[in-house]
Amino acid sequence: MRSVEAIVPLKLTLFGEHAVVYGYPAIAMAISETMKVRVEKSDKTIVSSNTLTIGNIKVDLDEMRAESSQLNRVLSYVIAALNYFQDRRPVHVSVESTVEPSVGLGTSAAVIVGVVASYSRYIGLNYSPEEIAKISREIERSVQGLGSRMDTYTTSLGGLLYFPRNSDDVMRINGNLQIAAGYIRRATSTAEILRRVKRLRDRGHIVDKIMDVIGEVTELARKALESGDDSLLGELMYVNHGLLSSLGVSHPTIDELVSTARSLGMKGCKMSGGGGGGSVICVREPKSEILLESKGLKIVNSEINSTGVTTKEIN
Amino acid sequence: MRSVEAIVPLKLTLFGEHAVVYGYPAIAMAISETMKVRVEKSDKTIVSSNTLTIGNIKVDLDEMRAESSQLNRVLSYVIAALNYFQDRRPVHVSVESTVEPSVGLGTSAAVIVGVVASYSRYIGLNYSPEEIAKISREIERSVQGLGSRMDTYTTSLGGLLYFPRNSDDVMRINGNLQIAAGYIRRATSTAEILRRVKRLRDRGHIVDKIMDVIGEVTELARKALESGDDSLLGELMYVNHGLLSSLGVSHPTIDELVSTARSLGMKGCKMSGGGGGGSVICVREPKSEILLESKGLKIVNSEINSTGVTTKEIN
Repeated sequence: MRSVEAIVPLKLTLFGEHAVVYGYPAIAMAISETMKVRVEKSDKTIVSSNTLTIGNIKVDLDEMRAESSQLNRVLSYVIAALNYFQDRRPVHVSVESTVEPSVGLGTSAAVIVGVVASYSRYIGLNYSPEEIAKISREIERSVQGLGSRMDTYTTSLGGLLYFPRNSDDVMRINGNLQIAAGYIRRATSTAEILRRVKRLRDRGHIVDKIMDVIGEVTELARKALESGDDSLLGELMYVNHGLLSSLGVSHPTIDELVSTARSLGMKGCKMSGGGGGGSVICVREPKSEILLESKGLKIVNSEINSTGVTTKEIN
Repeated sequence: MRSVEAIVPLKLTLFGEHAVVYGYPAIAMAISETMKVRVEKSDKTIVSSNTLTIGNIKVDLDEMRAESSQLNRVLSYVIAALNYFQDRRPVHVSVESTVEPSVGLGTSAAVIVGVVASYSRYIGLNYSPEEIAKISREIERSVQGLGSRMDTYTTSLGGLLYFPRNSDDVMRINGNLQIAAGYIRRATSTAEILRRVKRLRDRGHIVDKIMDVIGEVTELARKALESGDDSLLGELMYVNHGLLSSLGVSHPTIDELVSTARSLGMKGCKMSGGGGGGSVICVREPKSEILLESKGLKIVNSEINSTGVTTKEIN
């Protein structure tokens, strides 16, 4: 074959971000906003992207090594993913995304998952979604160090997923949720946000207590999802948001948005993902997208994706 | 004597609002923004106020009974306070305040404390500040039902006060804190805010857990006050604010203000009092009042008052 294209759903964290890093449970959902990663026969290894932060740069990667300071994160993920495979063939990897990177939608994980899914099929391997998830997580960890398995698993497997406490399990939640979602640019890097939480944590045991409560909110949310109780679920979103905000990981515009939604009597909203800007989710109702747009957020297609990553051969 | 004037300091809650209603500890501070309550010899009992919500209304109260639906809260507090005394003499009670009522500054309590202090002296009783506090609290409870002893005690006694968990004790905190404070009108009534917390509480044990954390934040804040650690104290303000916000008792403008302060690297800010608008406090630094004013808050004189209520005879 000449090329393989992977369609990777992006994801939204519904509950438990940050706490999940410390072993607490989390809930994430794959969405219909997708990223395309195409692997194509080529004389040399080339990475290109007409979106994301690397713009239209084309990088010759015959050596499969790169000076990381000169390269951005997307590129380093592609290289790390390609380097995972023993069977190295020169390919043109192109990444196409309609959303900005680093806004809490799992684009970093999606790049890795997309390369693993498309390149593996290109070289004749037949990985299951679970294998793609596992391999992608390994690669992500080797590049990032910290973080959770949530993004790689959710973008690989699709659906509504529950990540239990202190475990490597992933469980499907038998439920449904209509959400509205949007994002703004992040004002603070993940590294700085993680530093803030750590600094606060070093000063006492308050952070652990707050993480405990976030863990309980996540468990209650799981039950609310299973029983279809949108009203409780929404209230838990507000609670989870306030707890994240108390940790200093939110953003003025988003705090005001969520607080406005609550004062307008909307069912529920919260920040989603690492914070410092980034994504916001709300229980979907007529007012929710209007509110998100009115505060300058870019709307994303937040219908649930239940397939996970898919690939097709293009001849 | 012809008349007695009481000068009553207003107050700011530093930590533990809402949680104090459920038996958790709290910290409050009397401030230099004051209310004047004057009791003057008169043929009939008259209540007047050129500030507060009753405006310039003068009400003849020969009967010392009032149709409460026609009267506002300030008036009902004055009447309840006068009715406390066996020795009833016709007086003209005038209340003068420079701040709006119901913004978390303890104006309701200050009215009661002011009447108790000035009227008792007018009829020849010599109450200690502790007696004034105790009597005022009794009167407040008879009118309000709910609430905490914090406001009546702080406006009576002055200073920086710690209200321990599940106790009627009040302890002075040996520390100092320079704060900036301002307020906006409240968008939500205390009754509605208390209903919100109760509704959330009825749905699970999450609210109790959050109250627990607020209690611990308050204990840490007490130590930080005693050791003069403004930086920790400020961080605890942010944490306390987020926890209050998770309970749905905050306000969009105030959430944005506090979040902006945090993102600007300011030491600490939080809502203060019942919420739904009302007061905000920040660790005082050059930027803090400018930020408060820029968000439309009216600045109050938040220097500490250490005398509590004082009275003087005017002949």
